[in-house]
Amino acid sequence: MKKSFDTEILCVGTEILLGHITNTDARDISELLAKIGINVKYHTVVGDNPERLRECVEIAKSRADILITTGGLGPTCDDLTKTVAAAAFGKRLVKNEAEEQGLYEYIKTGRGLTPNTFNQALLPEDCTVFHNLWGTAPGCAFEAEGKHVLMFPGPPKECVPMFREYALPYLKKLSDEVIVSHSVNIFGIGESRVDDLFADEMNRMTNPTMAPYAKECDCLLQITAKAESEAAAEAMIAPVMAHVKERLGDVVYGVDLDCPEQAVMALLKERNLTFATAESCTGGDIARRFTELPGASAFLKGGVVSYTNEVKTCMLGVDAQLLAEKTAVCREVAAAMAEGARERLHTDLAVSVTGLAGPDGDGVHEVGTVFIGLAAAGKTFVRETHMGAFRTRSFIRRMAGNHAFDMLRRYLSGLDVE
Amino acid sequence: MKKSFDTEILCVGTEILLGHITNTDARDISELLAKIGINVKYHTVVGDNPERLRECVEIAKSRADILITTGGLGPTCDDLTKTVAAAAFGKRLVKNEAEEQGLYEYIKTGRGLTPNTFNQALLPEDCTVFHNLWGTAPGCAFEAEGKHVLMFPGPPKECVPMFREYALPYLKKLSDEVIVSHSVNIFGIGESRVDDLFADEMNRMTNPTMAPYAKECDCLLQITAKAESEAAAEAMIAPVMAHVKERLGDVVYGVDLDCPEQAVMALLKERNLTFATAESCTGGDIARRFTELPGASAFLKGGVVSYTNEVKTCMLGVDAQLLAEKTAVCREVAAAMAEGARERLHTDLAVSVTGLAGPDGDGVHEVGTVFIGLAAAGKTFVRETHMGAFRTRSFIRRMAGNHAFDMLRRYLSGLDVE
Repeated sequence: MKKSFDTEILCVGTEILLGHITNTDARDISELLAKIGINVKYHTVVGDNPERLRECVEIAKSRADILITTGGLGPTCDDLTKTVAAAAFGKRLVKNEAEEQGLYEYIKTGRGLTPNTFNQALLPEDCTVFHNLWGTAPGCAFEAEGKHVLMFPGPPKECVPMFREYALPYLKKLSDEVIVSHSVNIFGIGESRVDDLFADEMNRMTNPTMAPYAKECDCLLQITAKAESEAAAEAMIAPVMAHVKERLGDVVYGVDLDCPEQAVMALLKERNLTFATAESCTGGDIARRFTELPGASAFLKGGVVSYTNEVKTCMLGVDAQLLAEKTAVCREVAAAMAEGARERLHTDLAVSVTGLAGPDGDGVHEVGTVFIGLAAAGKTFVRETHMGAFRTRSFIRRMAGNHAFDMLRRYLSGLDVE
Repeated sequence: MKKSFDTEILCVGTEILLGHITNTDARDISELLAKIGINVKYHTVVGDNPERLRECVEIAKSRADILITTGGLGPTCDDLTKTVAAAAFGKRLVKNEAEEQGLYEYIKTGRGLTPNTFNQALLPEDCTVFHNLWGTAPGCAFEAEGKHVLMFPGPPKECVPMFREYALPYLKKLSDEVIVSHSVNIFGIGESRVDDLFADEMNRMTNPTMAPYAKECDCLLQITAKAESEAAAEAMIAPVMAHVKERLGDVVYGVDLDCPEQAVMALLKERNLTFATAESCTGGDIARRFTELPGASAFLKGGVVSYTNEVKTCMLGVDAQLLAEKTAVCREVAAAMAEGARERLHTDLAVSVTGLAGPDGDGVHEVGTVFIGLAAAGKTFVRETHMGAFRTRSFIRRMAGNHAFDMLRRYLSGLDVE
């Protein structure tokens, strides 16, 4: 069986070439393919133009083993991609009865019939149909002239779940090796420090490999192994993972997590505790982030966005004299906000944020000065951060939230908090 | 002078093909080029591989008039892109004294010397040098065999400002026409309805043109004119803009805005009013969105995230019996939350959201059922929405926020609110 498949991702859509939308499909598909050991060699974007699309398909056919297309399948697109790709490989389009029936059911719901609605049921002969559970246009895959062609609709909310559901199992069968990756989530030290810590090892390693990646406000260390089976790859990763975790210590907040709030939710669940938020410069972002997680209501009872000093006093009981004397940007106000939220919302814990997210300063503190508080039974912690005035407002707000989640994680894990 | 220049953007970087980073350079450059009337026909991404890069440059040379490259110029890249692109057009690389001097100055600051640092001063003969004020690797442009080649470093923080600073003036000189676009922001009717309203006109129009675009939870109608000067293009757009605004009426919330909260902030400023938020299923997202705008604190005093019923009662004064009888998902609770926030935070207005964002239901209401309230002096409004259980949690939360901002805008503009 062939070991390596050069792959090209061809995205069809004039709106990408106009800069109206970002080509996230190519990134998401590339990331998913990397995980199963398939090498993406080219991304191409072309507009909704049959002649140029035909040329791009010909080029891809000449240089890639697998061609993945996105876009140009919907009811308003004249089914450009299917027509052109099928023709390039000498295939006819034939009507798929099941998909046509599905489209009849769909228009019965009154959600719109266009002249091209039923063209969506025309698919290349002898293809594998990828039924679209997230929209109307089906995707498909066929093999011809030794190449594999897989087609998906363009909207990311359809393309990415369809790719996971259909393309990954289809493509995994082509390869006799499996790639497994795990990411160690790190907060508290930067990517370059992680790089320094493991540089020698990383240079020596060939399989598994390790590589650090910077994320917006934290970083991760990815460990990747290739083997003949998933179990064998996992077995190769396990000792490396154990070593990495031991060496990094308590800056590790999880493995394969999307965000630190997931780690916090797991710990709150384990300890059966609730929390509340008291947010000034983050403006509700901490509560918003935590409530992105389904099931958040069992742990986050609520919070106060105390964007003005008046609200810090009337809703959280922060002493007006303290605010007048020391401004809102200080250790004492962070502590009082957290304590006020914990008391008034009747929770086990509360986190608070007060500081300057910029772009304008207050004439006293540097932009990026933020105090983060954590109130627990009998003890309140405050962390002081200076992120630097060169940081953007959105970075400062996100980083402040990460500190709040880090303090919660460390408290709930019995580690030093401040 | 030639009127139309087919352009290809070629991005060099294995990390894009691995899905580690999104190709925002191609989007940002495309958007900037569209504004000066230059048509991008292709985006290509290739890895840091000289042979494949050479082939991609050859393809671009054969099908485009302007080739713009990003990436592969830095000190760790062996100057791959310059070497390959110069060779493809028969140019030598020669040392640029000024850039070399700049690199000497740079390493004196102690910010790192790599074996390739000085290769960055090697540039194609007879090129225009684009000095990099945002990093170290210079960009450049040259003309050869009737084609224009422009090269930029890959990091977006260097690439995009350099493109604005150097490429736009360079490319504008090639074209004798200017393109101007304005977007009409619309909330309350969908893209397909906008399309229906203006379909006949859009089909007839050639310059200016109009096109509707769907955004995540609203849409816009873009009007674009080409002319010999900016003033002439604006003059062509003005009557179309007036006609579009009149036909669409009060679903238009602005022109060239990024989000509806900007329209709300302008109206609050005009009327010198403040507001507060009371958020259940949006979990702080409305306050977070408004406080993304610098200067928000003059208008948003704060808010309560009342994620549980207990907090709705203790922080907003919602009647516990009402919650027990009718659940939190009802018109009365939305009204009581808004009224409670307005009273307790001492603001002129308050908005509230209560509903089911899913994915789990409550066994009573369908996911996507959301009530949005607006409390003003002497009058409270509630809007009831059913977004459909097929919507994602994040869509429902964002759309609920858009309704809250829409109700604020309509109230502040003297329009019907519910």
